Amino acid sequence: MSEIENGHGLKRRREAITGLGDALRLLIEQATATEAPTEELLRAAELIRRAAAPLGERVRGRFETAAADDLLGGVRLYNPVTGAGSAFAPPLEIHRDGDGAVGTCTLGRAFEGPPSFAHGGVSAMLLDQMLGYAAGAAGHPGMTVRLDTGYRRPVPLYTPLRLTARVAGIDGRRVTVTGTITTAAEPGDVLVEATGVFVALRAEQARRLFGPVLG
Amino acid sequence: MSEIENGHGLKRRREAITGLGDALRLLIEQATATEAPTEELLRAAELIRRAAAPLGERVRGRFETAAADDLLGGVRLYNPVTGAGSAFAPPLEIHRDGDGAVGTCTLGRAFEGPPSFAHGGVSAMLLDQMLGYAAGAAGHPGMTVRLDTGYRRPVPLYTPLRLTARVAGIDGRRVTVTGTITTAAEPGDVLVEATGVFVALRAEQARRLFGPVLG
Repeated sequence: MSEIENGHGLKRRREAITGLGDALRLLIEQATATEAPTEELLRAAELIRRAAAPLGERVRGRFETAAADDLLGGVRLYNPVTGAGSAFAPPLEIHRDGDGAVGTCTLGRAFEGPPSFAHGGVSAMLLDQMLGYAAGAAGHPGMTVRLDTGYRRPVPLYTPLRLTARVAGIDGRRVTVTGTITTAAEPGDVLVEATGVFVALRAEQARRLFGPVLG
Repeated sequence: MSEIENGHGLKRRREAITGLGDALRLLIEQATATEAPTEELLRAAELIRRAAAPLGERVRGRFETAAADDLLGGVRLYNPVTGAGSAFAPPLEIHRDGDGAVGTCTLGRAFEGPPSFAHGGVSAMLLDQMLGYAAGAAGHPGMTVRLDTGYRRPVPLYTPLRLTARVAGIDGRRVTVTGTITTAAEPGDVLVEATGVFVALRAEQARRLFGPVLG
């Protein structure tokens, strides 16, 4: 896209995508928690359709990556767990920590499964991302082939969470990673734990799966 | 809420919540796929903040269920996998099938992990819901205590999917359920499989976890 061919345009676009992501996350929290009168819900739906229309006029195709992303450089603004532009992402913020990774996020109303707690699948989703990050940070990026999740206690909404991940073993193209979810306040009290196995793609597999994207 | 105290008001509110959910899902798809000019993203964010504000004026508290929901009757309009009012839910449509369950959905751009495929965590989330549904349908509702997921092949976006779940065993309060994800077109070709264990809460556990919600 011509408008982001220079560095300034790209920076500005990424900021706009982040701002749009922030607005979407706020909207979703309010729309999920609202007890506003029914008329207000109808009005909001109308405004939302108006906001969506111009965005839909120019969209990337199924095998096209976002112009503001940098796939090989690891910039994925729409990643549904960590992406600043993703409506779904809490977003989870991950950074390296020694030979592993630590993540932080707080889950709002939209992530609710059992009343006042996160949906079990949300925990699995956060952990898949954490574990995959740790595998990549250890120099062994791969696709998830197993994710085994143990739920000890429910994960509360509206509570700062702390996630960890650490590579437990490397066997050729297979990396095993373990991770946990706790609250930030009680990092010793594991709520959910997971073990994941990630496998690096062979060149031929990567071509078959991502050929249409990589061109 | 007085406006939904009669059946007509409740029906109308549930329809409005579903309409708002539809609008949110469309907005998110467009906002994730858009290559519209940066100015359009800024304008959309402004409209979205305007739509959110009145919804935020009256919101339920952390331990309050939505007035339009019926917790004990199984109506959860904001469930993040199946809820018609949820911005996150594809939504997955589940129905009973013999002694198991079958689900269908199509995943859009917002669920993307590896380019053009669903995030691994999304598959885990869909399967957690499927397996929990099947446990409940078999008369043994419970909380997830384990979810073990095996990924054979990536799950494509924009492709009708078919999910299955079946109770594999019951041992007191523990129910083991297995499930799969395939495309609708190739139901014999398993992309992701999972085994989940669900445990019914004892009355004392239910009181401790959900006391603030159940009042």
